Amino acid sequence: MKMSIFMSKVTSLVLVTFALIFSLGAQAAHPNLVMTAADVSEMRKAITKPGRFSKAYSDLKAEVDLHMAQPITVPVPKDGGGGYTHEQHKKNYQLMYNAGILYQLSQDKTYADYVRDMLLAYAQLYPTLDLHPARKVKSQNSGKLFWQSLNEAVWLVHTIQAYDFVYGALSAQDIKRIETKLLKPVALFLSQGQPSTFNKVHNHGTWATAGVGMAGYVMNEPEWVEKALYDLQKSGKGGFIKQLDELFSPQGYYNEGPYYQRYALLPFVTFAKAIENNEPQRKIFQYRDGIVLKAIDTTIQLSYDGLFFPINDAIKSKGIDTIELVHGVALAYSLTQEPGYLEIAKQQDQIILSGDGLKVAQALDKGLAKRYQFDSVAFGDGSDGKQGALVIMRSQLAGEQALLFKPTAQGLGHGHFDKLTWQFYDQGEEIVSDYGAARFLNVEAKFGGHYLPENESYAKQTVAHNTVVVDETSHFDGDVEVGNRNAPVLHFFETSPLGTVSSAKIDTAYQGVALTRTIALVHLAELEKSIVLDLFNVDASGEHQLDLPLHYQGQIIDTNFSLSVNTDQLSALGAKNGYQHLWLKGRGLPEQGLAKVSWLNENGRFYTHTSLVNGQEEFLFTQIGANDPHFNLRNEQAFVRRVQNKQQHQFISVLEPHGEYNPGKEYTLEAASQVTKLSYSQQGEVMLLNITIAGVSYLIAINQAAEGSIRQDFQYQDQSFFINGRLAVFALNDH
Amino acid sequence: MKMSIFMSKVTSLVLVTFALIFSLGAQAAHPNLVMTAADVSEMRKAITKPGRFSKAYSDLKAEVDLHMAQPITVPVPKDGGGGYTHEQHKKNYQLMYNAGILYQLSQDKTYADYVRDMLLAYAQLYPTLDLHPARKVKSQNSGKLFWQSLNEAVWLVHTIQAYDFVYGALSAQDIKRIETKLLKPVALFLSQGQPSTFNKVHNHGTWATAGVGMAGYVMNEPEWVEKALYDLQKSGKGGFIKQLDELFSPQGYYNEGPYYQRYALLPFVTFAKAIENNEPQRKIFQYRDGIVLKAIDTTIQLSYDGLFFPINDAIKSKGIDTIELVHGVALAYSLTQEPGYLEIAKQQDQIILSGDGLKVAQALDKGLAKRYQFDSVAFGDGSDGKQGALVIMRSQLAGEQALLFKPTAQGLGHGHFDKLTWQFYDQGEEIVSDYGAARFLNVEAKFGGHYLPENESYAKQTVAHNTVVVDETSHFDGDVEVGNRNAPVLHFFETSPLGTVSSAKIDTAYQGVALTRTIALVHLAELEKSIVLDLFNVDASGEHQLDLPLHYQGQIIDTNFSLSVNTDQLSALGAKNGYQHLWLKGRGLPEQGLAKVSWLNENGRFYTHTSLVNGQEEFLFTQIGANDPHFNLRNEQAFVRRVQNKQQHQFISVLEPHGEYNPGKEYTLEAASQVTKLSYSQQGEVMLLNITIAGVSYLIAINQAAEGSIRQDFQYQDQSFFINGRLAVFALNDH
Repeated sequence: MKMSIFMSKVTSLVLVTFALIFSLGAQAAHPNLVMTAADVSEMRKAITKPGRFSKAYSDLKAEVDLHMAQPITVPVPKDGGGGYTHEQHKKNYQLMYNAGILYQLSQDKTYADYVRDMLLAYAQLYPTLDLHPARKVKSQNSGKLFWQSLNEAVWLVHTIQAYDFVYGALSAQDIKRIETKLLKPVALFLSQGQPSTFNKVHNHGTWATAGVGMAGYVMNEPEWVEKALYDLQKSGKGGFIKQLDELFSPQGYYNEGPYYQRYALLPFVTFAKAIENNEPQRKIFQYRDGIVLKAIDTTIQLSYDGLFFPINDAIKSKGIDTIELVHGVALAYSLTQEPGYLEIAKQQDQIILSGDGLKVAQALDKGLAKRYQFDSVAFGDGSDGKQGALVIMRSQLAGEQALLFKPTAQGLGHGHFDKLTWQFYDQGEEIVSDYGAARFLNVEAKFGGHYLPENESYAKQTVAHNTVVVDETSHFDGDVEVGNRNAPVLHFFETSPLGTVSSAKIDTAYQGVALTRTIALVHLAELEKSIVLDLFNVDASGEHQLDLPLHYQGQIIDTNFSLSVNTDQLSALGAKNGYQHLWLKGRGLPEQGLAKVSWLNENGRFYTHTSLVNGQEEFLFTQIGANDPHFNLRNEQAFVRRVQNKQQHQFISVLEPHGEYNPGKEYTLEAASQVTKLSYSQQGEVMLLNITIAGVSYLIAINQAAEGSIRQDFQYQDQSFFINGRLAVFALNDH
Repeated sequence: MKMSIFMSKVTSLVLVTFALIFSLGAQAAHPNLVMTAADVSEMRKAITKPGRFSKAYSDLKAEVDLHMAQPITVPVPKDGGGGYTHEQHKKNYQLMYNAGILYQLSQDKTYADYVRDMLLAYAQLYPTLDLHPARKVKSQNSGKLFWQSLNEAVWLVHTIQAYDFVYGALSAQDIKRIETKLLKPVALFLSQGQPSTFNKVHNHGTWATAGVGMAGYVMNEPEWVEKALYDLQKSGKGGFIKQLDELFSPQGYYNEGPYYQRYALLPFVTFAKAIENNEPQRKIFQYRDGIVLKAIDTTIQLSYDGLFFPINDAIKSKGIDTIELVHGVALAYSLTQEPGYLEIAKQQDQIILSGDGLKVAQALDKGLAKRYQFDSVAFGDGSDGKQGALVIMRSQLAGEQALLFKPTAQGLGHGHFDKLTWQFYDQGEEIVSDYGAARFLNVEAKFGGHYLPENESYAKQTVAHNTVVVDETSHFDGDVEVGNRNAPVLHFFETSPLGTVSSAKIDTAYQGVALTRTIALVHLAELEKSIVLDLFNVDASGEHQLDLPLHYQGQIIDTNFSLSVNTDQLSALGAKNGYQHLWLKGRGLPEQGLAKVSWLNENGRFYTHTSLVNGQEEFLFTQIGANDPHFNLRNEQAFVRRVQNKQQHQFISVLEPHGEYNPGKEYTLEAASQVTKLSYSQQGEVMLLNITIAGVSYLIAINQAAEGSIRQDFQYQDQSFFINGRLAVFALNDH
């Protein structure tokens, strides 16, 4: 059963006749949350001139007018996430918010009346509600309008802004009714009514404190603001400030990864802006060395070709045009006037109707956008920045390349068991890939649109990533609690014109096994290409089977060793921990020397992975899809390097992009790998890789001393060399 | 061993001192093949002004200047296709052609001298050559510079134009030397030296006649032109005119399909233009109702989203930007001034330096391009247009959709055994797909870059397509000769605002089995969507197993019947005729009624295939990749509908695009099929499909009477209806 309440304009006119003026204390200006009266004045001017802003205004107006032609519908809460009443209440807060903005810009009272009528409808409904019928039993987080209070907090964040927009058009009687019957009760329910959520240093807490704090500003309840900032006891152990302290690393990285970071961003951006507008003396944007701006900027940095790097539970098509980041970029530009943010805004192709949105629109209209600088960075993880790091390496030598190296902390419940994994991107495509989340968002037929069972059984498992699996068991034996307690250690990170190198270690992923990986994206300017070095050391107290998968995107072109391919029958590679989902398509045991696997990617470029092998590394070629009774998984390819009964092993390899396949223009260039020699040695703390590629012999040195800045001298082939930083590249005269 | 000949400018200067004037008969103007002196005069003006043409000119100049900085290299022929000497001679003719154009445009004699020197180098080499060492034994088509005379003819087509460009800059002595030692011998070798190739009505013959005919114009040998046009005996049984008569259908369709059609196009376009410029009285562009223009236009029509429909041996990334079609479109625009061709030229993004190219460039600079009209058409196959047809249906109701239905003739050696197959495209993506050719063009590691063995064993086989396979045997039992002799019959084709419908039949693909398929792309304007109806009738004299595969692109979202999926082990579906390459992933036997399979395509749209089944049609879910020891095949998905022991069967189905999956913006619309009812009946000659979709009940009538224009009356659910053409759509009031 659902019920709709239709509030006619007549009803509210009747109410007006009973209007009373009552004291509101020191009256604040309205609106004064994310945008101010001064902003509005500029925006009103802007909509009279052609440009991006007035275009965004008329687009929104057309959309809202369509909705407003329908009767107001405020149904009695009944359904859980995705259900009718849930979706209707979500639509309502968005509509109130939008209509409120339109009222401010157009000064057309129709919009204010519409918001008022809907608020009054809510004010009539809300006092009648108990906890939501679809709430989870024993949950601390139940809502009233929604099954969980998270949505209720999001409702408040939008609705309080809508109320702020139309405040000036309301009668005192309506104000009283709306505040006492609706907005104050909601704010109290979300604060003192749910102390554990409100005080929690967690994204749910951010939405609650943002909503309640903004309600405090609008309804002149400074105590609420204090509680929102410092928790219900004003102890500073919880609240928005503590969330700013703990939920981001000093570099602005959010523990769960960019997919969740962009979602977490919105209440931070919104409430911080409201604080700035109301209490600039708090210097919220300077707080923690500008953590809000860092959080926004890091979210942008964690993207490639417009999409977020898909680590942990991430849906791959999510990118920088997400609405949360549109708000974030508008704020970042307003704070910095950096023209690089305008390029991102251009790609987002969406203008926010706010003071900051106006600045972006006008700057874009003036053609001020400049290239946004994507950097090679190690983003420290954890509130102290020392729970490992997420490392991004970039190169522009031959098309846009990015390498992600992931010695991060677990990242809570959405984290994957993928310590030290990596991904590689080139020319807009995934080359060495990560599965991301196994989920078809909102597709009912696919497990109700939730995370699929295969997200646990495959996507989170270590073998689904590009890192070492010991004895076919996932990191931390798949225990997220253990994972959350044990982060890798970032040994070093350095970037220079020679390239970028990083090394990290974890010895808690498996008992008695230390995993150390050093990855470098090395620029070979003479060859106009970058190559990837990957040195993975495993040191164990006993003997183990070690697997190192590489999930590649493309079609196998060649291997330089013979394969035994399963042509008539396929079986699963293993029985559990993700192995049950991999078909074993073929295997090969290359002789001592260089083992090459080449594939061709959609982007028309070839990639050859060359391993230095000792004759004991078996290559297993797999395809995802076994034990997948509902065809839930994508059938992607990998090869797994495997050694047995090893206490110590070093996986050494090079990834080399090369050539071009252009059947449209009927030419193919350099379809074969150009790596002809590869050898590895170590001198003291210096790792030495000698590689001959396209006829040029390079000695690549990586200094792994604890103190990287101390010069290291070493000999190689009767010549003397030294390295000052972490990475050095020498051209050798080959004999 | 390869040898390079370096001709210095000094050498040719010495030769000049022996220059003699000798009679050339009535001296023709130069250049006068594809472009004329009048064209050149306009082009010279154009390169002084900014615009697309001068941009193309300076781009070409920069490229040619780079090459000309290298010494001239005319190696002694040694290698076959793809080898060094082969590729070098290809580069040389292209370079001479380009340098010749640059000479005409810049009047800089450096370019003419370069062409002259290279021609003289060839004139020195050519008389020393016997047949090519890498020729095929006993072949009628050996070349001297190249292993096959096809390449030699292409060489002549380019080189004779280059010669024509620089003619005015040559001394009489050089002219004599080049003509007597090189150009005339090549022309004679390709004509009277190889009568069977020259006289053959085949693409190889077109190149030979084009080269020899143009040589006749340039060197004032009118007899050669006559022979090029009407064969060596001037009988008209062979030669260019006969090729125009036979190689294209009256609608301009080339028997092997668009991938080969665009290749075949160039000598037609080139020689025809030369004929027009030299002998306009021949009215070559009016010949056969304008067949040259039709051939060009049809090539464009046979594309979707810029790529050619991949029927037969086609590499999928080949599209309208292919250089052959750039020439074709320039000619088409020049002949018609149709602004739609400009839109195609814009997509091609390449300007030809010719008189026609100039017209295109200037029109594009003026912004004259208009939308090119892609139509629904049945392109008759065969020289009489009656050897079946290639049918294209289009819809723009909800994004650009195209359906290809293929009751064509076999298409010679590159043809596939795919009678009556279909393909479907939507929003720029393949939805129901064809494998195309199994080949990695020019990738040495992949079978030398040739067609892969799997092209024969899989891609050509019937099961690799979307049409009926009887008893796991391909059409014509895979015999191309039998295929070439037996084309399907196009029963009807009709297009109207209601949609497009076509029906065709073949009873020679299998002995004693008649296959009849009727396909319609029906527009449901009220629902803003188009759906596909597919009615496939099999009538046999005995009992057979019938398989109807559907190769879909995307991920299975749902089936409305239970599946038994092979989760632990996969086996090949069969042993031969392509079946050995299909893994059987699962199977299901839906109960009587509607059997639905839904998938999600890359384009973010859902597709549901609904079959009307009798409880005996089994669905087999497959993936390509079995018996593929070198990972040569793409691992694509299909489902195969199978019935056993049937003498007569009708496969009835509907394909329905629906909804949208947008995880970026976090919404999913209509993920479920909206087809709730489907029933089929027949009244006399009228096929009736009653379908309820999105709550609307439609009666779709298809009139299959021999004479489609006669009105048919029929009753349905106690109502009277009539149909006048082939297709009628009625909205029913459902009871």
